[in-house]
Amino acid sequence: MSCLMPGGPAGAPALRVVRMGIDTSQEFVIYMPREGPVCCAEGFTALSRVELRLRGRSLIATLNVVDGGRLAPDEAGLSNSAWQALGARPGDDVDVAHAPVLESMSRVRAKIYGHRLDAASLAAIVGDVAAGRYPDVHIAAFLTACAGGRMDVQETIELTRAMVEVGECLAWPGAVTGDKHCVGGLPGNRTTPIVVAIAAAAGLVVPKTSSRAITSPAGTADVMETMAPVALDLPTLRRVVSREGGCLAWGGALALSPADDVLIRVERPLDLDSDAQLVASVLSKKIAAGSTHVLLDVPVGPTAKVRGEADFVRLKALLEVVAQAHGLHARVLRSDGTQPVGRGMGPALEAHDVLAVLQGRADAPADLRDKGVALAAALLEFCGRVPAGEGPAVAARLLAQGAAWRKFLAICEAQGGFREPPRAALREPALAQWSGRVTAMDSRRLARLAALAGAPNVAVAGLELHVKLGQRVAVGQPLLTLHAQARGELDYARQYLAASAVFTVEREE
Amino acid sequence: MSCLMPGGPAGAPALRVVRMGIDTSQEFVIYMPREGPVCCAEGFTALSRVELRLRGRSLIATLNVVDGGRLAPDEAGLSNSAWQALGARPGDDVDVAHAPVLESMSRVRAKIYGHRLDAASLAAIVGDVAAGRYPDVHIAAFLTACAGGRMDVQETIELTRAMVEVGECLAWPGAVTGDKHCVGGLPGNRTTPIVVAIAAAAGLVVPKTSSRAITSPAGTADVMETMAPVALDLPTLRRVVSREGGCLAWGGALALSPADDVLIRVERPLDLDSDAQLVASVLSKKIAAGSTHVLLDVPVGPTAKVRGEADFVRLKALLEVVAQAHGLHARVLRSDGTQPVGRGMGPALEAHDVLAVLQGRADAPADLRDKGVALAAALLEFCGRVPAGEGPAVAARLLAQGAAWRKFLAICEAQGGFREPPRAALREPALAQWSGRVTAMDSRRLARLAALAGAPNVAVAGLELHVKLGQRVAVGQPLLTLHAQARGELDYARQYLAASAVFTVEREE
Repeated sequence: MSCLMPGGPAGAPALRVVRMGIDTSQEFVIYMPREGPVCCAEGFTALSRVELRLRGRSLIATLNVVDGGRLAPDEAGLSNSAWQALGARPGDDVDVAHAPVLESMSRVRAKIYGHRLDAASLAAIVGDVAAGRYPDVHIAAFLTACAGGRMDVQETIELTRAMVEVGECLAWPGAVTGDKHCVGGLPGNRTTPIVVAIAAAAGLVVPKTSSRAITSPAGTADVMETMAPVALDLPTLRRVVSREGGCLAWGGALALSPADDVLIRVERPLDLDSDAQLVASVLSKKIAAGSTHVLLDVPVGPTAKVRGEADFVRLKALLEVVAQAHGLHARVLRSDGTQPVGRGMGPALEAHDVLAVLQGRADAPADLRDKGVALAAALLEFCGRVPAGEGPAVAARLLAQGAAWRKFLAICEAQGGFREPPRAALREPALAQWSGRVTAMDSRRLARLAALAGAPNVAVAGLELHVKLGQRVAVGQPLLTLHAQARGELDYARQYLAASAVFTVEREE
Repeated sequence: MSCLMPGGPAGAPALRVVRMGIDTSQEFVIYMPREGPVCCAEGFTALSRVELRLRGRSLIATLNVVDGGRLAPDEAGLSNSAWQALGARPGDDVDVAHAPVLESMSRVRAKIYGHRLDAASLAAIVGDVAAGRYPDVHIAAFLTACAGGRMDVQETIELTRAMVEVGECLAWPGAVTGDKHCVGGLPGNRTTPIVVAIAAAAGLVVPKTSSRAITSPAGTADVMETMAPVALDLPTLRRVVSREGGCLAWGGALALSPADDVLIRVERPLDLDSDAQLVASVLSKKIAAGSTHVLLDVPVGPTAKVRGEADFVRLKALLEVVAQAHGLHARVLRSDGTQPVGRGMGPALEAHDVLAVLQGRADAPADLRDKGVALAAALLEFCGRVPAGEGPAVAARLLAQGAAWRKFLAICEAQGGFREPPRAALREPALAQWSGRVTAMDSRRLARLAALAGAPNVAVAGLELHVKLGQRVAVGQPLLTLHAQARGELDYARQYLAASAVFTVEREE
């Protein structure tokens, strides 16, 4: 650099913002001209972390330096994400300064070297994460340091507390507010809309907020979004719940446990989901959402997130003890995780399964229907809405008589209007290579396959499963159908399918 | 997205490259128009990992999606780094495809969950890292999973092997090739140029390749670059060594242990440097550089990288056993790490210290001179160049009589020409607030302070230390002087200095 700042000015001059039209996903990026006065005066270089201030809002962005006169010396380009977060308008000036030293990272470093994280450390880290002060590589280090069983119970309790306290908290009238959550790991398995519809039809208050997918082809929020608006603000959410007794909203728009959303963004590409992070993520959202009673569905199977009995027992105990420490009633149910539940994997395909169950259609997947009824029954009993033992009959009747379907439609209408989920333009079946019996299927590979086909970013993408464990198939019979919107993704998924053992079909004479 | 690909084409069409002029540091970024045929057909979204191919070269880049007609539908913008790595020229067409699935990440995930990494896993991971297939967050997860003592000896040996085998290896004529390395953690302490000059003057072959800074304000390559070109290609390196018996080059231009350079890029912002990573990094470079005998300087002190006796013993044993497994002779020397060595911290400031010692100037830092002579003496004895016990006298004489200085100049000339290191435009002393005795100084905070002033990115930046441990200072006496090239950095360093206990000065009556 050949520019020197003349002595004098106390601070760097403000720069005029330019919308670069560059989508960096959620990462904040600022583009500054290499020879501009601020780059020179402040000694910024590429990948510097800088603090941007505009009309009382501030955020930490990563610097990309731009050469060759593409920006005027007094201009600063903003990525779409930074433009939105700052609420920038054309002609605005932005102040740019060095980002403050990230002191809480020393706590993460201590954790990597085997020290415990105390409440103050976790509050500091989570506060910085929620405020967008952690670059992605620092978040990855934090997540990795806490994975693999390296967080003890007290650390998990304090992590949960820190995640609750950094965000908004809801409160609901009435002594009992029900909630339901599946720890995931099983593709398909979209019981939540069914459970909420039945429970709300039974008069329980269930203000359900869900996440988008972490490592799966779809989260409940992704699925619901194909049928109704889910990005509700707080007044809308309150109105929906007070009118219908329940909702099926995306939690991310509500700033409940906002650090969780930032962590998930990095967890997802890493495909990393530790016990402590999982418990803190799930329970912090429930506590912040004002739930009093939460039913937790934990599928157990060799390729599910929870692989065996020992893992289940450990996770169940951790969920219960952390919930209890925060005054939340939790009941953990073990479910069959040996194969996917329902047929679809991917937002719209799972929505079609949900609709078939709610509408009582003959072609509805029986396993999804049965599991939805069982969970709704357990929730109604756990919340004291029906006497013990009567849950299954009540839940089955509300579904069979259409009350759950009407409640679901009413919730969708209150959220902004029901819509039919779309269908993919491109489909391709995968056929059995020989006759035999399906003796195993790999849930992780099925989830990967659906993701390669484009789920959840492309709502219609994913796959439809045509067989169940133990079923006999004939050569040439379709095992699944890939759904995609783009040729590249379809090719990519097909290529993975050819190379990976998704199914085990044992030959029979 | 509202675009559908007409059926037909087997692959996506190639895109015309556009140089965006955006400096993203070493990260490869491709900018593609949202409505272009490739984005649509391949289903790419922001932050997708995509493979780029151009004239037989390929790399994996991160996608940023560009809106609003800033790129034509058939154009693809490249970051400066991607443009250079692909050897792109205006008018070139680039092929774009989904990046292959990163299978080796499953090994990293297993490591996070407590499993060992075997030789094949490490080879797969290191191969993918060296080929640029790991996004930064995945590298961060790998580094974190291996930090904090979680790699055993065999894993460290195999990591070292994988890092050697993924790159180039040099070989030198003659049975003995000497080398010297400091594991770092002590700011200043720039003995390498002094040791190489003395050893080469004594006739030892010392083809020294050094790294740039990881977590310190300067690496030897950064310091040497202020005095001579260091980015030598292999023919130049061979010519320098055959003419002068030694060199002081940057290893990064030679593709020796290239994965290390990628790992360091992420280690640096994380300020993370584990035993296993440190040993593999150091020894893989030495093995690849063709060294037979390496002297390892390990400073020990409460704020150095190695804090105490137990850590030293552990690191020494690991260095020795890993070196031995690879047929490398290693001698580990413990040195005083309670305070910095020399006065300067930062590339140019340390170069000035080195020159003062080599030129035998009266104002040369005595501690740096003494340590340089002691290390050169040990290296000459270890390599059998002088009989045991005679090293100190030989080394001191070569320095005092100017032979080392002439050798240093000759090496710099052979590398492309000696130059005087520059000096900073802005300087500001920090004064003692009261009279007393300096009883402690924090090396990590001093290093952080020099980094905040701009080192090592800004060569002249850093700080000059005016006091030593145990020294009496009077109120108003300068303890150090900050050097910076930009007001923002000077302010930033000053702010950190005001808030942090860098020195402990105990009041005296």
